[in-house]
Amino acid sequence: MRFHTRKWIKPQDLNPNGSLFGGRLLEWIDEECALYSIIQLENPRTVTKYISEVNFQNSARQGDIIEIGIEVVKFGTTSLTMKCEVRNKMTRLSIISIDKIIMVSLDEEGRPKPHGKTKVEYVKDRLKD
Amino acid sequence: MRFHTRKWIKPQDLNPNGSLFGGRLLEWIDEECALYSIIQLENPRTVTKYISEVNFQNSARQGDIIEIGIEVVKFGTTSLTMKCEVRNKMTRLSIISIDKIIMVSLDEEGRPKPHGKTKVEYVKDRLKD
Amino acid sequence: MRFHTRKWIKPQDLNPNGSLFGGRLLEWIDEECALYSIIQLENPRTVTKYISEVNFQNSARQGDIIEIGIEVVKFGTTSLTMKCEVRNKMTRLSIISIDKIIMVSLDEEGRPKPHGKTKVEYVKDRLKD
Amino acid sequence: MRFHTRKWIKPQDLNPNGSLFGGRLLEWIDEECALYSIIQLENPRTVTKYISEVNFQNSARQGDIIEIGIEVVKFGTTSLTMKCEVRNKMTRLSIISIDKIIMVSLDEEGRPKPHGKTKVEYVKDRLKD
Amino acid sequence: MRFHTRKWIKPQDLNPNGSLFGGRLLEWIDEECALYSIIQLENPRTVTKYISEVNFQNSARQGDIIEIGIEVVKFGTTSLTMKCEVRNKMTRLSIISIDKIIMVSLDEEGRPKPHGKTKVEYVKDRLKD
Amino acid sequence: MRFHTRKWIKPQDLNPNGSLFGGRLLEWIDEECALYSIIQLENPRTVTKYISEVNFQNSARQGDIIEIGIEVVKFGTTSLTMKCEVRNKMTRLSIISIDKIIMVSLDEEGRPKPHGKTKVEYVKDRLKD
Repeated sequence: MRFHTRKWIKPQDLNPNGSLFGGRLLEWIDEECALYSIIQLENPRTVTKYISEVNFQNSARQGDIIEIGIEVVKFGTTSLTMKCEVRNKMTRLSIISIDKIIMVSLDEEGRPKPHGKTKVEYVKDRLKD
Repeated sequence: MRFHTRKWIKPQDLNPNGSLFGGRLLEWIDEECALYSIIQLENPRTVTKYISEVNFQNSARQGDIIEIGIEVVKFGTTSLTMKCEVRNKMTRLSIISIDKIIMVSLDEEGRPKPHGKTKVEYVKDRLKD
Repeated sequence: MRFHTRKWIKPQDLNPNGSLFGGRLLEWIDEECALYSIIQLENPRTVTKYISEVNFQNSARQGDIIEIGIEVVKFGTTSLTMKCEVRNKMTRLSIISIDKIIMVSLDEEGRPKPHGKTKVEYVKDRLKD
Repeated sequence: MRFHTRKWIKPQDLNPNGSLFGGRLLEWIDEECALYSIIQLENPRTVTKYISEVNFQNSARQGDIIEIGIEVVKFGTTSLTMKCEVRNKMTRLSIISIDKIIMVSLDEEGRPKPHGKTKVEYVKDRLKD
Repeated sequence: MRFHTRKWIKPQDLNPNGSLFGGRLLEWIDEECALYSIIQLENPRTVTKYISEVNFQNSARQGDIIEIGIEVVKFGTTSLTMKCEVRNKMTRLSIISIDKIIMVSLDEEGRPKPHGKTKVEYVKDRLKD
Repeated sequence: MRFHTRKWIKPQDLNPNGSLFGGRLLEWIDEECALYSIIQLENPRTVTKYISEVNFQNSARQGDIIEIGIEVVKFGTTSLTMKCEVRNKMTRLSIISIDKIIMVSLDEEGRPKPHGKTKVEYVKDRLKD
C-alpha cells in the first residue's frame, strides 16, 4: 500500500466532541480514491460506485497528522477496485480501513466506458513515451 | 423511514465533473446519523463505529434538493443501528442507500457505555414528563 | 409549523466567543427557505426578496442539535411568504424566530414570474398523478 | 457611512442559480457588524440581538466585488445600533440594506453589561493616550 | 497605506495550536490584492504572478480582529505592484508584511495585456465622469 | 524532492475567473510544510516564520490533480528550512515553486526551542527503536 496524501487535523475537522469528524474523514478518502482512479484510468469522468463496509478503528484528535493509503485490488473492464487505509502518521495506528472502493469510468453520456487499463502505471513512465 | 434534513446542492458541493461530490454526501449522512443517535440515546458522546456497504445509485446535480432518511434497525446495549437512504426530494429517486450504520455511546473515558434505551422516543413525549 | 432540517453545531459554526455564530444561523435559514420555496413553487429560480425583523432569543453552543421549522404564511402571485423558527431539538427552546421571509419566483430573464400555486402541496401527491 | 470590508464573489459563494447566495451575504454582514461593535465597545463578548427588516435590492454575480458599509445609529447603555449597506464596489448599486442591527455587550455570565461608550472612537486616538 | 478589509478570527481560521493558521492569512491577503487590482486595472482577468518574501512577525489568536492594508508600489505596463501589511486592529501590532505582490492583467487568451493605468483612481471619480 | 499530498481541484478552490485561486494554493502549501516540519522536528508547536519569494508559473484548472513536493534545505538550531514545488500530477508542469520556507519549533511559552534534529528521519525507523 502506498501512502500519499497527508492531513493535519484542524478545528474545522472536528465533531463537537473534539475528535475527528467521521464525515470529514470519509470525504478525504473519497477524494483520494477519485483522484487516484483518474490518474490510473486517465479519464476525468470517474465516479464512486461502491464502498464496502467501513470500520472506524481508532479516533484522531486535533493536531494529529494522518496519511491516506491506497492499493489497487483489481482492474475491471470499466471499473477500478481499491483498498484504503488511513493511519496516524506518527504512531502508524490504523484509524479506518476499507477493503473495497469501486470507481467507474464513464463516457460523456454518463455510461460505463471501458478504460483499457490492466495494471498500475506511473506517470513518469507515461511521460517518457 | 422518516426523512428530515434537506440539502440544496450548491457549487461548493460538486466534484470537478459537476455532479454531487460523493465525499460531501457521506459527510452529510454521517452528521445526520450522529445527531439522530444523540437524540435517541441522550448522550452527546456518540461516535460512528461501522458503516455497511454503500451503493451510489444515482447522481445528483447542482440545484437538486435532496433529503436524508433514517430508520432504526436495532438498539444494542451500547449501540444504535440505523439504515439510511438519501433521495431526490422532487423525484424520490434514490441517490444512495446504506443498510447498517452503527453508532456507539461512550463514557467520559471513551469506553462503550450502556445507554438503557430500547425503542425510538420522541422529544415531545420526553418533555411532557 | 413543520420542522425538517437539523444541524449539529460543530467548531466551524462558532463565533470566537464559543457560541453559534449568528451569520451561520442566518445562512442555514436562508437555505432552508430557498429549498422549501423551490419545492412548493416548482421553480428552481426562486430568490430571497425580504426578511422581516429577526430576534435572537437564545444562543446555542457546540454539540447542540437544532431544527429549522417553516410555515407558509401566504401564496402571492409571484411570491411565497413563510415564517421560520429555529429551536433547540432537545429542549425546544427557541433560538431565533422570523415572522416573514418572502421568496420570489423568477423567469429566465430574472423578472418576477407567476407561479400559479395557492396552497401547500406534498411531493407524494404530485407523484401519484 | 464608512465602507471597509470587501469581498470578491467566488464559486463557493453562489447559490445553485449562479448568483450570490443570500445566506452567505447575511453571514458577511453579521461578521462585519460583530467586529465593528467589538472595536467600538471594546468588549469581545458582543452578540447580535436584533436585525430589522432586510431588503434584497439587487443580486450580485461571480467575480463581482462588493463592499460592506456600517454607520452607527445609536449608543444604548448596553447596546450599539448600526445601519448597514452592501453595495457593488464598481457600480455602487445597492445589493442589500438594513436599517437597524443591534449588538449587545455581555458580561462573563452572558448578561447585558453597560459599555460606557457614547460616541464613535478611532483606534488611532485611543493608542495616542 | 489604506486598510480596508477586516476579519474576525474564528475557530475555523486556527491551526491546531490555536493561533491563526498562516495559510488562511495568505489566502486572505491574496484575495485582497486580487480585488484591489481588479478595481484599479478595471480588468477582472487579473492574476497573482509574484509574491516577495513573507515575514510572519506576530501571531494572532481567536477573537482578534485584523485589518489588511495595501499600498500601490508601481504601475507596470501589464502589471500592478503592491505592498501589503496585515495588523491587529486594536493594538496595531504588525502580523505580516510583504513588500511586493505583483498582479498581472490578462486578455481572453490568458496573455499579459496592457492596462493603460498609471495612477491610483477612485471609483467615485470614475462614476462622476 | 518527495511528493506526497495530492489535491483534486474542485469548484470551491477556484477564483472567479475559473482557475485555481492562488490563496487556496498558498493555504495548501503552508499546511504541507507545517505537517512535514512537525513530523521531522517531533514538536507540534511548529510555526511558519518566513517564506521566500513565490513565483506563480502556470495556472491550474477545475479537475486538475496537483501534488505538493517538499525537500529539506537545512536544519537550523530551532528551525527547519524547506523548498517546495507544486506541480500538475499528469503533466508534471510546475505550478508554483518556493525556494525557502522556514518553520520554527517553539516551547510552551512560544519562544524558539532547539529541536536537536540534524537530518531527515523516517517514521518507520523511529518506530523500530
